[in-house]
Amino acid sequence: MARVFNFSAGPGTLPEEVLRQAAEEMLDYKGSGMSVMEMSHRSSWYEDIHNKAISDLREIMRIPDNYKVLFLQGGAHQQFSMVPLNLIRNGKADYLVAGVWGKKAYQEGKKFLSAKVVASSEDKKFTYVPKIDKSMLSEDADFFHITTNNTVYGTRLRDKDIVCHDNVPLVADMSSNILSEVYDVSKFGMIYAGAQKNMGPAGVTVVIIREDLIQEIDESVPTMLQYKIHADNNSLYNTPPCYSIYICGLVFEWIKKKGGVEAIQKINEEKAKLLYDCIDSSNLFKGTVEKYDRSIMNVNFVTGNEELDKKFVKEAAERGLVNLKGYRTVGGMRASIYNAMPIEGVKALVEFMKEFEEKNS
Amino acid sequence: MARVFNFSAGPGTLPEEVLRQAAEEMLDYKGSGMSVMEMSHRSSWYEDIHNKAISDLREIMRIPDNYKVLFLQGGAHQQFSMVPLNLIRNGKADYLVAGVWGKKAYQEGKKFLSAKVVASSEDKKFTYVPKIDKSMLSEDADFFHITTNNTVYGTRLRDKDIVCHDNVPLVADMSSNILSEVYDVSKFGMIYAGAQKNMGPAGVTVVIIREDLIQEIDESVPTMLQYKIHADNNSLYNTPPCYSIYICGLVFEWIKKKGGVEAIQKINEEKAKLLYDCIDSSNLFKGTVEKYDRSIMNVNFVTGNEELDKKFVKEAAERGLVNLKGYRTVGGMRASIYNAMPIEGVKALVEFMKEFEEKNS
Repeated sequence: MARVFNFSAGPGTLPEEVLRQAAEEMLDYKGSGMSVMEMSHRSSWYEDIHNKAISDLREIMRIPDNYKVLFLQGGAHQQFSMVPLNLIRNGKADYLVAGVWGKKAYQEGKKFLSAKVVASSEDKKFTYVPKIDKSMLSEDADFFHITTNNTVYGTRLRDKDIVCHDNVPLVADMSSNILSEVYDVSKFGMIYAGAQKNMGPAGVTVVIIREDLIQEIDESVPTMLQYKIHADNNSLYNTPPCYSIYICGLVFEWIKKKGGVEAIQKINEEKAKLLYDCIDSSNLFKGTVEKYDRSIMNVNFVTGNEELDKKFVKEAAERGLVNLKGYRTVGGMRASIYNAMPIEGVKALVEFMKEFEEKNS
Repeated sequence: MARVFNFSAGPGTLPEEVLRQAAEEMLDYKGSGMSVMEMSHRSSWYEDIHNKAISDLREIMRIPDNYKVLFLQGGAHQQFSMVPLNLIRNGKADYLVAGVWGKKAYQEGKKFLSAKVVASSEDKKFTYVPKIDKSMLSEDADFFHITTNNTVYGTRLRDKDIVCHDNVPLVADMSSNILSEVYDVSKFGMIYAGAQKNMGPAGVTVVIIREDLIQEIDESVPTMLQYKIHADNNSLYNTPPCYSIYICGLVFEWIKKKGGVEAIQKINEEKAKLLYDCIDSSNLFKGTVEKYDRSIMNVNFVTGNEELDKKFVKEAAERGLVNLKGYRTVGGMRASIYNAMPIEGVKALVEFMKEFEEKNS
């Protein structure tokens, strides 16, 4: 068996240890005589898995006690409607649009309330993250929605650059950089993230929500879209995606073993630095976004020549560095170096980039 | 490793061959160098898995060409709202309420349209399935909703007993008996089923829908709840629950190898007969529902003595016959004998029932 280095933007690479454990436990989870896939969601076997995943996530993200952790379905896309449907009070919300997903969140949001784009970087093809200033933001918005990492263009918004009015809930889509660097959960009203980049398989969405935001809402909203229903039932109102939650739990354990998010962040910064240094010292490759806003999860670069980009992607794949093709609307290359991408993968990529440059300049 | 016989009502037992293959392919799917969990949903690797699952399901259910197969999220519960939100035309619908889930579907449905219970067996604690007669049904209903198998009480509605006006779409929740016996898909407007009983892990819902029912709907409906969005994108509008779909695909292949649904139905009828014959010839155990309406998936029985029921469940578990406790509101015992429960499991249960009766009467 030869594992590749998988730079896919999501679903993305998972820790080999996690996959190995999942394979070993597939037919018999810890002497239960069955797979986690076959367990009743009401069984004590599964409840332990479910609650351990929640408490481990609480620990590694330092989630304060007045927040609930939910496991939902439908991905970030479903949150684009659940957020406004559940948080609506005055009927208006602010959105920062710094990428494709932030724009989608805004477009869905405006179906349900008066959504305002407070800043957008679309004018420069999302190559930077607009600076946020409190003066841009409404004091009576129902929430202010941001995306902390823009998967497609490869930019991110750091914790220290996020501002919001005290009485306005800050809502963040962290799908592509949750658990990759430290964010202070207490400054957010709500955080959500599809699992398929830094947590586990596609099909489960983590929602971290401050308790005061969980309220009875208009009963005409589909029951499954009400946070209160899920919060009141510890995400067991209906059958949750148990197996995917189990894998997320294994990933949370793996992060704990690595020393937590703080330790993971250091490794991620080191990985990103290796790659960006290679780009910046190259005469062939160029980065595509403002340096300050560079994502440490999704690293975009181009040669400036489409044919050469294609050749790069093809030859890289031949040596086990796969899924380096950029997003279809962006072109070039994108290396997604999520938590589970080992530093060896990044080193192998850097080495190949140098070789490729030598041969092709 | 000792596998148990798992009579859980869902998530339930899966074919051991499927789990074994999933374990083997966990770190390297067919030479791809990665797990199916790690694959981009836009990759050709995953697209093959996705499309093969659809074509295999089409084959084993003999789904006509004018139907789409969708893989969605949110379980049957989410369908309870999606069905009325998408099929609404005249604003009225008929519901057959023959169990807990049919009732929930009705309760959610009436949030969105004028929902009518055309018949209910709640008066006798859902111990039978009301006979359907066309005269009960509105000719201008937007749909007529039924549940083909009632997991909690252990009753089912056979294909031959289902009637509906020609111009009214028949909608069936088949969560707990899809692929267990033959239903003529062409008589349905739509069929939906959570995967976690006869198909795969919790977290994916199969929707089979006639193309003329897939229409543009009120754009105020959350995008993720619109069938058209998912149908137009072959269930790849957003990241689908890829790994769960892969497991469903393995189960569909397993059914094909077994000879299709027709062959599976014969085995299921044999398994159910073994168990019901044991109950009917016993002086200790009693069935709990009308004989004609007995489910061949969920077999409920009681001793009439709660203490004895508990003892039965406990002692059965000690010999590897697990999850036989009845639903919390029903009590007694429930043996769920889904497709993947081998006949050996049912034989072992029957043997234990006979022994238990001898010792306890």
